[in-house]
Amino acid sequence: MAKSEQERSVSVELPDGSQLHFDEPVTVEDVAYEIGPGLGEDCRAGRVDGELVPPEYEITDDAEIEIVTPGSDDYLNLIRHSAAHVFAQALQRIYPEAELAIGPWTDEGFYYDIAGVDIDEDDFEEIEAEMAAIVEADYDIERVYRDREEALEIYADNEYKRDILETEAAGEEPVSFYVQDDWQDLCKGPHVESTGEIGAFELLQISSAYWRGEEENEMLTRVYGTAFESEDDLEAFLERRRKAEERDHRKIGQELDLFSIDETTGPGLPLYHPNGKTVLNELSEYVGNLNREADYREVETPHVFRTELWKKSGHYDNYRDDMFLLDVNDEEYGLKPMNCPGHATIFDQQQWSYRDLPVRYFEDGKVYRKEQRGELSGLSRVWAFTIDDGHLFVRPDQIEDEVEAIMDIILDTLETFDLDYNIQFATRPEKSVGSDDIWERAEAQLESVLEDQDIDYEIEDGDGAFYGPKIDFAFEDALGRSWDGPTVQLDFNMPERFDLSYVGEDNEEHRPVMIHRALYGSYERFFMVLIEHYNGKFPPWLAPEQVRILPISDDQIPYAKQIQNRYLDDYRVTIEDRSWTVKRKIRQGHEDRVPYMLILGSNEEEAGTISVRDRKEQELNDVDPEAFADHLGTEIDQRRTDVTFVQQHGN
Amino acid sequence: MAKSEQERSVSVELPDGSQLHFDEPVTVEDVAYEIGPGLGEDCRAGRVDGELVPPEYEITDDAEIEIVTPGSDDYLNLIRHSAAHVFAQALQRIYPEAELAIGPWTDEGFYYDIAGVDIDEDDFEEIEAEMAAIVEADYDIERVYRDREEALEIYADNEYKRDILETEAAGEEPVSFYVQDDWQDLCKGPHVESTGEIGAFELLQISSAYWRGEEENEMLTRVYGTAFESEDDLEAFLERRRKAEERDHRKIGQELDLFSIDETTGPGLPLYHPNGKTVLNELSEYVGNLNREADYREVETPHVFRTELWKKSGHYDNYRDDMFLLDVNDEEYGLKPMNCPGHATIFDQQQWSYRDLPVRYFEDGKVYRKEQRGELSGLSRVWAFTIDDGHLFVRPDQIEDEVEAIMDIILDTLETFDLDYNIQFATRPEKSVGSDDIWERAEAQLESVLEDQDIDYEIEDGDGAFYGPKIDFAFEDALGRSWDGPTVQLDFNMPERFDLSYVGEDNEEHRPVMIHRALYGSYERFFMVLIEHYNGKFPPWLAPEQVRILPISDDQIPYAKQIQNRYLDDYRVTIEDRSWTVKRKIRQGHEDRVPYMLILGSNEEEAGTISVRDRKEQELNDVDPEAFADHLGTEIDQRRTDVTFVQQHGN
Repeated sequence: MAKSEQERSVSVELPDGSQLHFDEPVTVEDVAYEIGPGLGEDCRAGRVDGELVPPEYEITDDAEIEIVTPGSDDYLNLIRHSAAHVFAQALQRIYPEAELAIGPWTDEGFYYDIAGVDIDEDDFEEIEAEMAAIVEADYDIERVYRDREEALEIYADNEYKRDILETEAAGEEPVSFYVQDDWQDLCKGPHVESTGEIGAFELLQISSAYWRGEEENEMLTRVYGTAFESEDDLEAFLERRRKAEERDHRKIGQELDLFSIDETTGPGLPLYHPNGKTVLNELSEYVGNLNREADYREVETPHVFRTELWKKSGHYDNYRDDMFLLDVNDEEYGLKPMNCPGHATIFDQQQWSYRDLPVRYFEDGKVYRKEQRGELSGLSRVWAFTIDDGHLFVRPDQIEDEVEAIMDIILDTLETFDLDYNIQFATRPEKSVGSDDIWERAEAQLESVLEDQDIDYEIEDGDGAFYGPKIDFAFEDALGRSWDGPTVQLDFNMPERFDLSYVGEDNEEHRPVMIHRALYGSYERFFMVLIEHYNGKFPPWLAPEQVRILPISDDQIPYAKQIQNRYLDDYRVTIEDRSWTVKRKIRQGHEDRVPYMLILGSNEEEAGTISVRDRKEQELNDVDPEAFADHLGTEIDQRRTDVTFVQQHGN
Repeated sequence: MAKSEQERSVSVELPDGSQLHFDEPVTVEDVAYEIGPGLGEDCRAGRVDGELVPPEYEITDDAEIEIVTPGSDDYLNLIRHSAAHVFAQALQRIYPEAELAIGPWTDEGFYYDIAGVDIDEDDFEEIEAEMAAIVEADYDIERVYRDREEALEIYADNEYKRDILETEAAGEEPVSFYVQDDWQDLCKGPHVESTGEIGAFELLQISSAYWRGEEENEMLTRVYGTAFESEDDLEAFLERRRKAEERDHRKIGQELDLFSIDETTGPGLPLYHPNGKTVLNELSEYVGNLNREADYREVETPHVFRTELWKKSGHYDNYRDDMFLLDVNDEEYGLKPMNCPGHATIFDQQQWSYRDLPVRYFEDGKVYRKEQRGELSGLSRVWAFTIDDGHLFVRPDQIEDEVEAIMDIILDTLETFDLDYNIQFATRPEKSVGSDDIWERAEAQLESVLEDQDIDYEIEDGDGAFYGPKIDFAFEDALGRSWDGPTVQLDFNMPERFDLSYVGEDNEEHRPVMIHRALYGSYERFFMVLIEHYNGKFPPWLAPEQVRILPISDDQIPYAKQIQNRYLDDYRVTIEDRSWTVKRKIRQGHEDRVPYMLILGSNEEEAGTISVRDRKEQELNDVDPEAFADHLGTEIDQRRTDVTFVQQHGN
């Protein structure tokens, strides 16, 4: 049925808020030309209601639109998308039998999943040379349309493209291809206008991936690359990447013997070695003390529960596919994906009065979530992780005070670790449980806390959980990457499901509000962030080995033991007693990121002193062992991140 | 085939080591008469090679024998066994339709599993009256033999007895019955000679049990009772039982809000409430510190592993039926039944030199063992329990020193908790792994440690594990019951299975010996023992609430808070601020077993003093708050079990 004139008209809103009206559907490029001929010429793509689309994209409904030109942030995505095509063309020039699956842009560059060829990273040089020739030739990149039938014929031998034609592109007729030189690819775009616009590129690595990420499908070869407008940008990126690799927590984790994950014991299930467990214990003690000071009481709940509990809490319905389930005597049990139902169960064992609230529980609670095996990565993505989980049961009038107290310890924690962060306040979504009254009251209380704290935060309207509003922290590590961090979430749902209550001043039963909160979030992910943030150079209070004593020769071993015994009650002190040169001992100490090395020769032994070397490679001789112990004690008590003894006590 | 004279002769060895020879098989009673006519007359049963049998039992092979008379320990078992018959007879007099299954004697009395009647404990009086009449009548109890066919006819309507005839009694023809008055029961005996020998009896409780203990079978009614030679013995038993019930950790656990186990969350899976977790934390910190002082390093291993690991360790073959198994992406995983394979995996990640050994790991490691649901009981029998598990990897020449150090911390631990114990040293069994050389050397080293400690121990020859000799501790609680406690086990097997090695001084690879050890064993069971041992009156260092402040009226609440703040950094102090009379507050404090109550009235507030009341109901006024704090600090630091402030500071 034809639309009437009225119905066919569209309004578009530009980023500055201004509106343009058209009597009938227009393309992105039309809009650009309408704004100005220069913009029309430069138009490479558009963002229409958030989606990146080619200039040819037709706008049929009212929309928000942004024109993408070579000056836009999005331009980099086009370059990378086109670089993926250039890679694919180069690959097929060398290996005509290569089958192409999909090749999108990513935050870091692009990848292309391929089949039918057996290449490795040694082949990159040859492929990159061919890519350079394609860029050099500056071929036009053109969008062309082909009949579905023709497309299916082109891909008669390529099951992946045929699969795309039958799924993502199912409704299209004709379907769009992008063509450069004599090469083409089924693609929705957008792209740059010619291969010469790709300023710089590099292939990065090869891994493997299941077709569509699903384990029952074939394994494809995934080639990662990146591209930029300029060589300088590429170099800067590669430098950042090199640094990130150096700081990779898996690499440092092995160097410092912190943890391991192995195939026999199970992927996604880290084993913490003594050094790693020492750091975890310090982290746990730190938040444990913060919690106890804030009148939280520790509880311990099982890792396995009957699924009855998960049905009661609702996790079974929403979370079952990600749960580890098991059968015990024909009853279904599940490893816990959340700690809250266990804590609600404990709360529910007792009769509470309004005077008893808030009741605050905490637990370093291990939870289990079944990620795809291919997505597991070091400590950042695991199957079993520990949350420093706190749950509060409060009266509605107590929300503000409690959230304020939680914010205080979260901010303390972030400061201790010297982490940058940002804050999001997410409010009531369309679908939610709980009365208007409680939502309004709760959101007002949260907002008031945020205002009082005098900190920056973003409001994410409608992004709260269905069970309550929340405040999420994301921290940024030394490489500018963002990670989920602390969280405070109100919950009006769980108390209903568990029928929790307290007796009010009016002698009636009332429903408490539940607050979920975590300071670290997942210990595993936080540990990973810290390893990379500190580049393995943990602050003295966290360092598995705080002091290493280096006797210059075996003659000083008795003196070394004497010094060690002096410190051992308070600090983690080892002796390097291998028969190495002192130079080698020092090198090893730096490699192991030990905060302080104490070098003991015959001079030190005679004088009863020590030489102190810190991991910034500064050294100070003739030091009184007590003076050093006092300084270290202060650094540890105050949880300082830096090692400052030599600096402060040198002249 | 008839035996020759020679072959038919038997020798029996008496408890004093003397031997008696008979030319042909003899009954137990014959042996008794051979020893002396008085013994023959008194003979009620015999222990033949450890088994309790009736006087009519025929000895056909050489055996060790003990004659049971009314003076023997075993006589009580006969009384109880006969009391079970008396119960069954009385029951069938009242309920002729009652079906009998089995009715054995036990350590505490007897039980009879029955079906076909619906009785409860209110019916005990009537049944006991009937039992008393049967005892009073002093019926002879006679063993008679019936053809199998006749027996099957007698039990035409009783599937349980028919089942017994077809299993335990399968080979017998004729089969033995015991008859008293007009009543009979299929039974192998032994029994007393007449019902009048039962001096005193009492029915105790009703529960239910699966036929043969297997969950797929029908549920039967189990009636527990007990019997003794005299009323005095019965009274003493009932008194002990009453005390045990009062001390029952499930009861105290609820009174003190320590833990809960519930059906929705899963049986055998305890949830620790804040009070219980406080005690567990203290227990953990105590052994953690002992371990760290002894140069153990803490590790943390997952609760779930691929079954590959359990196949490698051998647990899968021997332990699979007791393991919680689960499927993850079509691979089999298991919750860990043991911590050792995880620790061996960590040890195996690194290259070790002889100079690095011993390597000592410890972990509060949760393990999972699938007990029958019906056998789960409070904290004493659970599905998931935490072992304070230590594993050492040592050179063979280090065994003695290491075991000695372990014995020291075990003995320290037992002394701290004021627990009685006994020690068993179990040596090489017939089936074992490891060379003669290593076994001899290891056993000699263990024995030397035991000798050096100058403590009593029993040698259990041949009772060691197949993988190595061990020293087991059993502790006895306040009611004289015995519980598995600390253990030290050498292991020559696991290092083989994991192919563990270290490089020796000779630059060759050598196999370390593994030592398993635990100080508490299971935290859950130890917690249970402590709850009952202390009757909930934990030593101050363990008490969840160490001090409770009792303001006499609400006017003293500010002063109470002031005192609380003074103590709060060091002690666990609460305020009883409910509007109760001070008398009620004190009563509640005693019920909650709080070590100390501080009673604050206007006099105390004016003088800046406190009144101290301890849980022994002693009180002292005009106390300087600092003096009390100092005393409590000492009691806690020294882990004293008693509360002595009032006693020591009173006049």
